[in-house]
Amino acid sequence: MDAARYTVTSLSVEEADEQDRVLGALTAATRRFADAQLRTQVDLDEAAAVTAELEVLTDRLLQQATPGSLGVELGPREGEVRGHGNAVVGLRNAFSCVRRDGRAVEGTLVRYEADLGAGYEGPPGLVHGGVTALILDQILGEAASVGGGPGMTARLTVRYLRPTPLGRVVFEAQAQTVEGRRTVVRGWAKDPEGHVTVEAEAMFVLPRWAMEMQAWRRRFE
Amino acid sequence: MDAARYTVTSLSVEEADEQDRVLGALTAATRRFADAQLRTQVDLDEAAAVTAELEVLTDRLLQQATPGSLGVELGPREGEVRGHGNAVVGLRNAFSCVRRDGRAVEGTLVRYEADLGAGYEGPPGLVHGGVTALILDQILGEAASVGGGPGMTARLTVRYLRPTPLGRVVFEAQAQTVEGRRTVVRGWAKDPEGHVTVEAEAMFVLPRWAMEMQAWRRRFE
Repeated sequence: MDAARYTVTSLSVEEADEQDRVLGALTAATRRFADAQLRTQVDLDEAAAVTAELEVLTDRLLQQATPGSLGVELGPREGEVRGHGNAVVGLRNAFSCVRRDGRAVEGTLVRYEADLGAGYEGPPGLVHGGVTALILDQILGEAASVGGGPGMTARLTVRYLRPTPLGRVVFEAQAQTVEGRRTVVRGWAKDPEGHVTVEAEAMFVLPRWAMEMQAWRRRFE
Repeated sequence: MDAARYTVTSLSVEEADEQDRVLGALTAATRRFADAQLRTQVDLDEAAAVTAELEVLTDRLLQQATPGSLGVELGPREGEVRGHGNAVVGLRNAFSCVRRDGRAVEGTLVRYEADLGAGYEGPPGLVHGGVTALILDQILGEAASVGGGPGMTARLTVRYLRPTPLGRVVFEAQAQTVEGRRTVVRGWAKDPEGHVTVEAEAMFVLPRWAMEMQAWRRRFE
């Protein structure tokens, strides 16, 4: 796979918004198809017929496609980061499960609302424990950037307190301490009754070269 | 969402195999479509046209579908468990990324080969740290069943040693200690050069009622 990089968009604000609208709708449709494909009970001839038609649509989309992953694109607006491929929150990623209108930041508290349907199952009727860890890793990283120092995850610890039923799940996270290059963040998942089902703590570490670059840049600001 | 349960299939061995073949092909096609949808660069009119055709296929699959999640089905073969909805290893789950021919058990060591393409991205060109945690949670749970005692994840700790590039990733896990109802398991992810990129440790705990039921049943065996 080609290594993806940080790129700068050549689109105008209007073009980027139109692209997001059309490709966001395609992604949402893909998510609905994957859910239908998982739950379908149509007879096998019909399933095979749908498979054949889907392959044709795949070929149409691959007529022109980036060979590698999407990477991160800097958008046309000041400071805008378009991480559209991200596995948890990417606008163009059909696996992402955080609601588009379900991300909020209040002070240093980051909040996600996620709709975890049949595709996120572990034990019957319950969210897969690894899926909770996946989303917590993402939201804790975002909380590190918001309330502490950004960085790469060095360690993530997840404690499972009670089962998380499939359906709407709320995730929250907040930076706790920042010491030099290290930021410690805590987060949790809550079921619809507001019970905390899973707790997590992570340490994010900013690589030394990035810290030194920041200090160097500050001398010129 | 309807609570899914453990069910017993009414299919014969032949019928179950045919269903797995046809619906497994539909799932693989869905996975390819989701990858194409993420990477496509066709013009927006064509993307919108594909979206409309996809919606029609979704409606066809939903003509007959289970209202809730798949749960776990006991198959027609002795001891066969069909967790086809599982988010990491389910045959019918398009999000699952472990190769169908890439699961092996050697003694008490469990091994998965996963193809982590553009849909599993976090930082540009790298596997999302949460995706590694997701797969490790699943394989550690399987290793607990194979080499220790089964149970629910009580705690999962993941340490990130170096970045994991997108592409083929090997996961391994093995039970370390079993004490009463508690099994401790260790696991890791390896890049194509064989470097361990991520390490994990988890504790699985068998609920007390399940332990007592096992002891009770042994009295009659």
